[in-house]
Amino acid sequence: MDEVKVIEIKKSVFADNQQDADALRKELKTKGVFLLNLMSSPGSGKTTTLIRTLNLLKDKVRVAVMEADIDSDVDAVKIRRATGIPSIQLHTGGMCHLDAEMTRQGLDNLSLEETDLVILENVGNLVCPAEFDTGAVANAMILSVPEGDDKPLKYPLMFSVCDLVLINKTDVLPYFDFNPDKCREYIRMRNPKARVIPICARTGEGVEAFADWLLEQIHLWKH
Amino acid sequence: MDEVKVIEIKKSVFADNQQDADALRKELKTKGVFLLNLMSSPGSGKTTTLIRTLNLLKDKVRVAVMEADIDSDVDAVKIRRATGIPSIQLHTGGMCHLDAEMTRQGLDNLSLEETDLVILENVGNLVCPAEFDTGAVANAMILSVPEGDDKPLKYPLMFSVCDLVLINKTDVLPYFDFNPDKCREYIRMRNPKARVIPICARTGEGVEAFADWLLEQIHLWKH
Repeated sequence: MDEVKVIEIKKSVFADNQQDADALRKELKTKGVFLLNLMSSPGSGKTTTLIRTLNLLKDKVRVAVMEADIDSDVDAVKIRRATGIPSIQLHTGGMCHLDAEMTRQGLDNLSLEETDLVILENVGNLVCPAEFDTGAVANAMILSVPEGDDKPLKYPLMFSVCDLVLINKTDVLPYFDFNPDKCREYIRMRNPKARVIPICARTGEGVEAFADWLLEQIHLWKH
Repeated sequence: MDEVKVIEIKKSVFADNQQDADALRKELKTKGVFLLNLMSSPGSGKTTTLIRTLNLLKDKVRVAVMEADIDSDVDAVKIRRATGIPSIQLHTGGMCHLDAEMTRQGLDNLSLEETDLVILENVGNLVCPAEFDTGAVANAMILSVPEGDDKPLKYPLMFSVCDLVLINKTDVLPYFDFNPDKCREYIRMRNPKARVIPICARTGEGVEAFADWLLEQIHLWKH
């Protein structure tokens, strides 16, 4: 019942990732599928955020999830149990990121004709995933309060490639030295266009704004 | 006054990192220098932990610090200001890890003859740094409570290469779903020999045990 499909992703043999990514995006456009690449540090709350968001979205759009992980399959099982949504696990075999060809290997295992939105949960890593275009239509990231408000200064590329930054774990703001205004200012320095949404995946606060953003993006992509 | 030396690290041209790492360790042994490689996710508290620890150690051993970062120099400045200890910044130019040759480029900028302990703060990343032997005498990592107790399951290599795991931010345990016993069990699964020390870098709790562990390791290395 809790079994999820586990795909052992092979390292890409193609040299031109940008070309692969552009081709994948074009194909997704033709099929009317919106692919979101969700990135963050380990433990920032990607899976919990996804569960909350999927439960808000699942009656409105047809969703599937790809969970990238170095080794385990705990995330895909968790998503499947908590939402009932088709969820597959991509094993990266130690690789620290996904590229477009690896993403395609995952998508080949989904029924794209019956899907409006695919969410790819990338490997927990603020460095390498930012360097590889996965072919996704949009990039989003989660920065959690305990990680600190200075992260846009220290991991500039990640913030500059993301269309959306979710600031998670706002419920623990009183216990950490995290200045939301300063954080927004640092994000703007890296990426003036990025949308910033504060959320608390544990309580659900703010998650509706993320779901609405996704619905709007899907609508724009399909029309 | 707050200026720190910033070294732009070049990508290694040598193919055999293991050989470089072993050679570096041998050289450090001859010079009586203990090199600790400290790793963790972004925002787990490496720099704060270091400041606390260095202030406990600085009257007992001669210490120097190398702060690896993709871009900024905030950490080296912070360490210098808070401890007065020689601290240099290594810019990795977007690289997600350090290898032995890159570490050596940093060490070349320190006065090793006048140093007992060098602490290398690696790039904030639970994946790639675990794959490259830096030539350090010991590896340590910080896992912070907000990241979750399941991290040893999801980032197995990092836990298996570390001699010491510091569990940081214990002051926020009441606000997170983190089971310390379960975490220790998962760490043991990956690495039965790893020493585990719970700390709170913010309040200083437990940091003395880390400092004592370091003093003991330095003594063993020098004799």
